Amino acid sequence: MRAALLKQFNAPLSLEEVPDPKVGKGEVLLQVLACGICRSDWHLWRGDPSLVAYMEWSGGRLPIIPGHEVAGRVVEVGEGVANVAPGDVVVAPASSTGDARTCRFCREGNSNICEHLWIPGFGTHGCYAQYMKVPAGSVADLVKVPPGVAPEYAAITGCGFGTAWNALVVKGGIKPGETLLVTGLGGMGLSAAMIALSSGAKVIAVDINPAAAEKGRKIGAAAYSYSGKPEELAKLVNEEIVKTYGIVDAVFDTTGNPDVLSAVLPAVRPQGRVLLAGLMVKGKETWPLASDLVVARELTIQGILMLPSQRYDGIFKLLSEGRVNLEHVIHRRISLDEVNDAYKALSEYKSPGRFVITKF
Amino acid sequence: MRAALLKQFNAPLSLEEVPDPKVGKGEVLLQVLACGICRSDWHLWRGDPSLVAYMEWSGGRLPIIPGHEVAGRVVEVGEGVANVAPGDVVVAPASSTGDARTCRFCREGNSNICEHLWIPGFGTHGCYAQYMKVPAGSVADLVKVPPGVAPEYAAITGCGFGTAWNALVVKGGIKPGETLLVTGLGGMGLSAAMIALSSGAKVIAVDINPAAAEKGRKIGAAAYSYSGKPEELAKLVNEEIVKTYGIVDAVFDTTGNPDVLSAVLPAVRPQGRVLLAGLMVKGKETWPLASDLVVARELTIQGILMLPSQRYDGIFKLLSEGRVNLEHVIHRRISLDEVNDAYKALSEYKSPGRFVITKF
Amino acid sequence: MRAALLKQFNAPLSLEEVPDPKVGKGEVLLQVLACGICRSDWHLWRGDPSLVAYMEWSGGRLPIIPGHEVAGRVVEVGEGVANVAPGDVVVAPASSTGDARTCRFCREGNSNICEHLWIPGFGTHGCYAQYMKVPAGSVADLVKVPPGVAPEYAAITGCGFGTAWNALVVKGGIKPGETLLVTGLGGMGLSAAMIALSSGAKVIAVDINPAAAEKGRKIGAAAYSYSGKPEELAKLVNEEIVKTYGIVDAVFDTTGNPDVLSAVLPAVRPQGRVLLAGLMVKGKETWPLASDLVVARELTIQGILMLPSQRYDGIFKLLSEGRVNLEHVIHRRISLDEVNDAYKALSEYKSPGRFVITKF
Amino acid sequence: MRAALLKQFNAPLSLEEVPDPKVGKGEVLLQVLACGICRSDWHLWRGDPSLVAYMEWSGGRLPIIPGHEVAGRVVEVGEGVANVAPGDVVVAPASSTGDARTCRFCREGNSNICEHLWIPGFGTHGCYAQYMKVPAGSVADLVKVPPGVAPEYAAITGCGFGTAWNALVVKGGIKPGETLLVTGLGGMGLSAAMIALSSGAKVIAVDINPAAAEKGRKIGAAAYSYSGKPEELAKLVNEEIVKTYGIVDAVFDTTGNPDVLSAVLPAVRPQGRVLLAGLMVKGKETWPLASDLVVARELTIQGILMLPSQRYDGIFKLLSEGRVNLEHVIHRRISLDEVNDAYKALSEYKSPGRFVITKF
Repeated sequence: MRAALLKQFNAPLSLEEVPDPKVGKGEVLLQVLACGICRSDWHLWRGDPSLVAYMEWSGGRLPIIPGHEVAGRVVEVGEGVANVAPGDVVVAPASSTGDARTCRFCREGNSNICEHLWIPGFGTHGCYAQYMKVPAGSVADLVKVPPGVAPEYAAITGCGFGTAWNALVVKGGIKPGETLLVTGLGGMGLSAAMIALSSGAKVIAVDINPAAAEKGRKIGAAAYSYSGKPEELAKLVNEEIVKTYGIVDAVFDTTGNPDVLSAVLPAVRPQGRVLLAGLMVKGKETWPLASDLVVARELTIQGILMLPSQRYDGIFKLLSEGRVNLEHVIHRRISLDEVNDAYKALSEYKSPGRFVITKF
Repeated sequence: MRAALLKQFNAPLSLEEVPDPKVGKGEVLLQVLACGICRSDWHLWRGDPSLVAYMEWSGGRLPIIPGHEVAGRVVEVGEGVANVAPGDVVVAPASSTGDARTCRFCREGNSNICEHLWIPGFGTHGCYAQYMKVPAGSVADLVKVPPGVAPEYAAITGCGFGTAWNALVVKGGIKPGETLLVTGLGGMGLSAAMIALSSGAKVIAVDINPAAAEKGRKIGAAAYSYSGKPEELAKLVNEEIVKTYGIVDAVFDTTGNPDVLSAVLPAVRPQGRVLLAGLMVKGKETWPLASDLVVARELTIQGILMLPSQRYDGIFKLLSEGRVNLEHVIHRRISLDEVNDAYKALSEYKSPGRFVITKF
Repeated sequence: MRAALLKQFNAPLSLEEVPDPKVGKGEVLLQVLACGICRSDWHLWRGDPSLVAYMEWSGGRLPIIPGHEVAGRVVEVGEGVANVAPGDVVVAPASSTGDARTCRFCREGNSNICEHLWIPGFGTHGCYAQYMKVPAGSVADLVKVPPGVAPEYAAITGCGFGTAWNALVVKGGIKPGETLLVTGLGGMGLSAAMIALSSGAKVIAVDINPAAAEKGRKIGAAAYSYSGKPEELAKLVNEEIVKTYGIVDAVFDTTGNPDVLSAVLPAVRPQGRVLLAGLMVKGKETWPLASDLVVARELTIQGILMLPSQRYDGIFKLLSEGRVNLEHVIHRRISLDEVNDAYKALSEYKSPGRFVITKF
Repeated sequence: MRAALLKQFNAPLSLEEVPDPKVGKGEVLLQVLACGICRSDWHLWRGDPSLVAYMEWSGGRLPIIPGHEVAGRVVEVGEGVANVAPGDVVVAPASSTGDARTCRFCREGNSNICEHLWIPGFGTHGCYAQYMKVPAGSVADLVKVPPGVAPEYAAITGCGFGTAWNALVVKGGIKPGETLLVTGLGGMGLSAAMIALSSGAKVIAVDINPAAAEKGRKIGAAAYSYSGKPEELAKLVNEEIVKTYGIVDAVFDTTGNPDVLSAVLPAVRPQGRVLLAGLMVKGKETWPLASDLVVARELTIQGILMLPSQRYDGIFKLLSEGRVNLEHVIHRRISLDEVNDAYKALSEYKSPGRFVITKF
């Protein structure tokens, strides 16, 4: 099959013909229909420490086929697989059980913090390829996609949209009448903005890309772009955003950038929330947190790790009814061959939304 | 001033000229700008036991001027009043502290369960009049209405809309992607439907009035009317609603009718919620609750009593931004002289939304 | 093997020799070490409608071996069983998945509301026998008992203690400094009292059995007995309990008796909780609920259905550390032959705590 | 009156005779009965930035009488004061409304995040004196102390104990069967340990003072001391604590020390909580937070700021019943003259519990 391989950090992915995966007992083979290119794929490609560490901890080694935001058609199932059958279109949530839901956290309904967490493209080969194999321990987490939901949209629920859903709906991060500040309007940020808007919240967003801000405005957010300099963001927040809309109820961060986090923290109201979903880059691996401010305002800082299959309820209902339109989240549909171009755009922070691979 | 007085239960209100209220220390006089006619006014008029008991407990006696859904302009303030000034347009939330927020529940932010709860038109004269006096112990709860929010809309936040907001937003009764069944599409039911829709929920509604169902559909709900016979409702729920939309996540009841409650209870999913906001009529004062079903499904039955001023945050933001349009909740604007016609329509369950008195 | 069979409602169980269960694929055979006699076994034996209906719905038919509060030693496992092995001592929680945790509720971590709920002694033969078979669909829910926890205690976690834990800990029904009123001091009521006391709450309890009240006092509750007449209970609550301890924060009901529920409801504070865990008897199958009081006080009525295996975390830690002593919950250890005597005592409401069968 | 004044940061307090406070309209004069010496008094004395900034923001200037953990007898009330009367023994919670509960947060029941927060000893003179005046805007928050609760204990509820109560009870930071790690066993840490133990939790504690650890063990915690070196703490946590007790459910931090926080963070379980109550010292004003770990484990970091008067419910009930014994929290009762000795001990981290001034 055709696949894109990460052979060396920070070097172009290699487009190659590789052997088709073989399906063993309890495993499932997917024909990849759509594969989102998530910023965490890019973090791994850069060699950012957290994701390299996770890759290694979960059993992955270079060369590896990246990609974890996947919708596919089941084409083969191993012995003993009962929950899906050939022909089913499914999402493999980025955050899937690696132990067939036997650990405490899986049992409690939170496979995203599974003690043996499986993320495609890290522990095993991912979806930058024509086919992807789902390991036996993770098959329980496959989610069937109802007819009428396009594979591109379904793929995005697996990570970008799903993470925003986890933060805002499952963990109840936002309520009608509240104001949410979204930092970074990539695929996850746009998803968060749309979910918050459809939940009755006011949304303000910031990004360094004017095109992303433009897209933010299109979906109904008050969106701003800035140069990328932390002091400019602080000024934008204090002198424009807070003055216009007041202190915000919550922040949803997709950047993982300590400078961004420190710039927006003072704009959060007492007993407000900071929902952390972004990951950090090498060299900026800690956030110098003014924890006295956290105490003085009784802030809540809440980490968010994707979305487990157990909490999908309601997502496909909203998509099917057309109440959230994921087309806005898609920046471009591309072919597998264009994957390195997409990485270039991600490195320049110039993609207002998701690249989704739809041709393999 | 002109006022409508309840002199005898079940008899027409008497339109009369009465002395203007005199303002004492700590009190506030409002010129009534808009006054919603809430079904609980009608319950009192009928002599339904709970509300008669509440009236008496809180110090009211016939004849009394009814009316508690009020927006008014402050025209006079007694000595020591600091939180409002003449000229302010305010809502006196139906559910207001009667002890200047000194009881435990007021202090905790829940004046609606104040140990000395004040509801205009029950303990003291209400807003079916040109002027209404706010007692000293309740002045703390007056909520200023921002410019741009019409008094009719503001009035409705004081009870009908406010109660729905309390249930669905403050108590978190509904989440995006969930399905809510609303029983009764009067002013409170329509408010609930709109809040739930703007919160990302699917809404189904039932009413015995085809015009109410029509209005429900107009605002985006799947709405049904039925004859009023319990067995017909049970059939509608089981054979139409559940089959089409599945078992529901929550019920918001505005009817207080045991037959309605028993008919919809089996349609609520395990760990679902029944939000009770309706009050009961004389002769049907208990709900024969199949509590084994409550146990077997781990249902939550939650009483909802209006909305305290402390939880208004967000309401006027939504209204100001036009994200919820309370015009849909208004059935007719009327003059004080038409109040008995309105009661007649309420008795026939023929008012799809609120009558609001705007001429006095 | 020796077993006690329910052949006819309301008639003595029949002590018989029956064939040993045969273990098929995915199934597990337990040698019963301890079996609590729960009041719901007695409800089924009486033919109370909810439990007869549940038995039939879940596939059970008379004659059946009752019993669901079970700790046993694994003596045989069918093909494919991986989570337990011969020699393990386990609890089969009364409330277990019937579909190997594939339904939505199981996935979310709440097998107790499984769409195919399995309770031993209802859908299949239970633990009033030397051996009990666990169906393939329920094996996932077996919970290993750590060394040092006696089988009698472990058995009780499967229903009586587990239900109280669900109500008070998992659902957060009680907080330090609050006051809990427990109605009925059988095995579940005593468990609830002990959990609440060890959680920093004040506990008041009522029972019609003076010996039960005595036991309640022994474990630290303020416990009262009364004649069983509803009006006497109302008087006890209003004139003694509320006057001494104030209005209570929560009620935990183990009786399912509408008269008891109605007598204690007025003693619950605004925004207080009524935790329903008791089941109803034939002829008293609804609770005439004064729902206006639920509205006026914003009460929460919460159904509680046993405890799923996914929420056991912490229970065995507390038991192992000796911080909750389940010996207080045990009324008598008996042999299988004495089971009809135990039922007689249950019918007379004369058992302050659990009968546990420990000899077979 | 006699008072201790902070005239210069880091220099001994000056014991002086100063004029008695004069009581104006709405104000209250307390005769100080007991005054705890809290570490935040010491932070201000050191000139640590957050507290100096707060002092200035709230209107205080050197020289100032420190002290905010106060129980006193009302000796004089200004015109218009209705909630307390001469003779009452009260606590002025450290965290009190400064605007008579008119801001949004006060109204919602959370005066501790009042927009005009008043803390005695910062914005106005505190309780290191024979008398202390409560400003008019803060009188609403005075809490009456029931007979039978000693003033020393009541004083500690105002900050140290109150903060722990806020974290563990009001915000629900701990549940029965869980494990809590407390860092720092001063007055607040010991309070947290006792509350958690009386709530059914397992408590582990660390301190650099062996005497504090000894006290921790006395009240039932598993307590450890270490040298104060971060790497030694990390080793103690990883090689001793986690190995013995498993990964913990929550941390309650009283140190505000970034080294301590970073050392214990990896010991917190997925979806666990870090409750921040300690404040930072000059030169260590940010915590370099590995936020990828917060994301990967979905941790919650929760700031805790003392306890508002609105959430006192239950505290005095527990103390009155003797279920929590605050004597353990008291290190020494001292006279006002010994205050500089107490500061010396605080600087050396050698006080296992509170110094409480009881002679003036």
